[in-house]
Amino acid sequence: MSLIVLKFGGTSVASRERLFNAASIVEKAWRAGNDVVAVVSAQGDTTDELLKKAAEISPSPSEREMDMLLATGEQISIALLCMALHSLGCPAVSLTGWQAGVLTDSHHAKARIRFVETRRLREELARRNVAVAAGFQGTDAQGNITTIGRGGSDTTAVALAAALGASRCVIYTDVDGVYTGDPRLVRGAQKLKEITYDEMLELASMGAQVLHNRSVELAKRNGVPVEVRSSFTDEPGTIVREETMERRTVSGVAQDADVAVISLTGTADVPGIAYKIFDRLAKEKINVDMIVQSAAENHCKHICFTVAQDQAAQALELIQNQRDVAYQSLNMDPDVSKISIVGAGMAGSAGVASEMFEALYKQGINIMFISTSEIKVSVVIKSQDAQRAVQAIHDHFFQAENQ
Amino acid sequence: MSLIVLKFGGTSVASRERLFNAASIVEKAWRAGNDVVAVVSAQGDTTDELLKKAAEISPSPSEREMDMLLATGEQISIALLCMALHSLGCPAVSLTGWQAGVLTDSHHAKARIRFVETRRLREELARRNVAVAAGFQGTDAQGNITTIGRGGSDTTAVALAAALGASRCVIYTDVDGVYTGDPRLVRGAQKLKEITYDEMLELASMGAQVLHNRSVELAKRNGVPVEVRSSFTDEPGTIVREETMERRTVSGVAQDADVAVISLTGTADVPGIAYKIFDRLAKEKINVDMIVQSAAENHCKHICFTVAQDQAAQALELIQNQRDVAYQSLNMDPDVSKISIVGAGMAGSAGVASEMFEALYKQGINIMFISTSEIKVSVVIKSQDAQRAVQAIHDHFFQAENQ
Repeated sequence: MSLIVLKFGGTSVASRERLFNAASIVEKAWRAGNDVVAVVSAQGDTTDELLKKAAEISPSPSEREMDMLLATGEQISIALLCMALHSLGCPAVSLTGWQAGVLTDSHHAKARIRFVETRRLREELARRNVAVAAGFQGTDAQGNITTIGRGGSDTTAVALAAALGASRCVIYTDVDGVYTGDPRLVRGAQKLKEITYDEMLELASMGAQVLHNRSVELAKRNGVPVEVRSSFTDEPGTIVREETMERRTVSGVAQDADVAVISLTGTADVPGIAYKIFDRLAKEKINVDMIVQSAAENHCKHICFTVAQDQAAQALELIQNQRDVAYQSLNMDPDVSKISIVGAGMAGSAGVASEMFEALYKQGINIMFISTSEIKVSVVIKSQDAQRAVQAIHDHFFQAENQ
Repeated sequence: MSLIVLKFGGTSVASRERLFNAASIVEKAWRAGNDVVAVVSAQGDTTDELLKKAAEISPSPSEREMDMLLATGEQISIALLCMALHSLGCPAVSLTGWQAGVLTDSHHAKARIRFVETRRLREELARRNVAVAAGFQGTDAQGNITTIGRGGSDTTAVALAAALGASRCVIYTDVDGVYTGDPRLVRGAQKLKEITYDEMLELASMGAQVLHNRSVELAKRNGVPVEVRSSFTDEPGTIVREETMERRTVSGVAQDADVAVISLTGTADVPGIAYKIFDRLAKEKINVDMIVQSAAENHCKHICFTVAQDQAAQALELIQNQRDVAYQSLNMDPDVSKISIVGAGMAGSAGVASEMFEALYKQGINIMFISTSEIKVSVVIKSQDAQRAVQAIHDHFFQAENQ
């Protein structure tokens, strides 16, 4: 018997059938003798409906009032899930964010959880009730309702698991785990039994949005094991934890098509160029991902970086208008993709990067630029080559392993 | 400058246009220098949608979870009304039941307000914010969300007005005041400037559901003047208070078509008959309205009473099955109406009842039975005569007055 937190996303509670499916998962865990906290998101399209209502009233509603409005979405879900649990003979009590003791700062729409006051949760568990808590929401010190932004319900689930010392936090979602590559794109992609927090963070930042980074960071900080699994199958999912049993050199290959490259050639080789460029972009809230700078002939240097495609034009314009940065040429290329391999075991085993480059070379694929970290190697290539590149890299690292 | 509470019902916030209409009423009161608390109900059909969602999950959902679910309705309204107020340049802060300090007992679905902790409300007013509070909801001592049943938002508005010592509580609704008769049925019906709490209570109990009785009782107990007016016109409405300036003998004529008469003739003239009958009906939750008992020949008596039409058959059956009550005949007549005149000045002026009987006599209308109280005279007549009777009585008391 242990204390577990089970989280159900919007699609997992979207209809009567799905609510009862979620309820039966919760009920089974409860009947097995566990203390169960269920965390739920707003039903499928409730949030969109609420956003539409607000848009009818104001083009720029106050964030406090948006939080007040949106928080009703999860409140509806928790009540309905409890009703479904009662129908299955499982005692359950719904708790809004404030009732579950989720205390946040006052940054409406993007609040951070400061503390979880677990008294009420523990009381309900002590009575052998399932506690069904609203994800995504909390209250600040003044008692205002806040929401905690994107990925909010995952973060709530991990925060409750951490505060309660849960043995496990299970995130039920519409994918059944974390794969070595995107199963829709890569032949032979395999589900991982385990993955480290750091690997998960790198994968998430590359567009494989299984778990939001905030929730993974919080899990890592508190050492909460998180399992990602599907609410539609009985299959085990992928467990995210600090250390995996087996350290795979490479855990996955990811692709991010939403990138554009901006390159400056022939900038002066003097201090402050990078600062001037990236400070300007940061001030305009343009997220820069990879940055590569290389020395070049004649005391010049080249700087390349990637941004999201919808910010590329703005980034280009900002640099063009920057009087204090001189260059020979400035180019933007939106037809690129970023391909990355991630693996916690990579740091200790030299040559992983070159194996990746070899796989690309054998396909005749040209690498535009390269960036590496402790547990990741990323390359930028032309988009037309991306699909072939991912498959070749995946075949190289995972087919060999399977033999 | 004074503190006022303005309440808007579901139809007054049902659409974008109506929300802005309500917002402009609030804004005007605020710009005039008043401290303003607005109390709102759930939008038009939100409650029905939520009930439908619950019905899909369970035929008999727990009342606690129903309260959790239904409370989202007002929470949506308060957020939207605040957004509308902001658009008009009027600072406003939404407050759920618990944030507004509405503390209730723990009877879910029909909780009673125990206390209003006004600290937060006063803080917002001190900052010159409009406080927009959710009607119909509160929390109990354990922090569970409760709803306060039918007429709930009117009751919330009066309770906040009482707790804050407001100079006035205005109930904006889809009728523009209290009339001497139902304007849809009675020619020449006039809007009353004022009416006493007691008169309003009698009128409400007769089907003229302008204000719910609970809110009127609360207003009476706390001496809060309540104005009923339309949110769609600028006309003054009707003020409900302890004493009216001018004591009208008769304030209104009301008609209730939803009655059936049950009559027993020739019951034994011994103690306990009435007790046995009405105790049995009360135990089955049948609401009995008028009761008349008269002596008759041969140590017999006749007992007549009225019930709502949908409970008449059940009431009849209960009496038929009652072994310890003997009678000569037992009849039920659903084709009847109750016509009443109400007036706080009636008590002191003899002859009002006979004036009513005279008006009926002149129309050749037969009275089946009569019941009187301090401020009310009710008669039961055949339904086919009801329309003519109401008009004749109204003409008698109000045309004369107008001349």
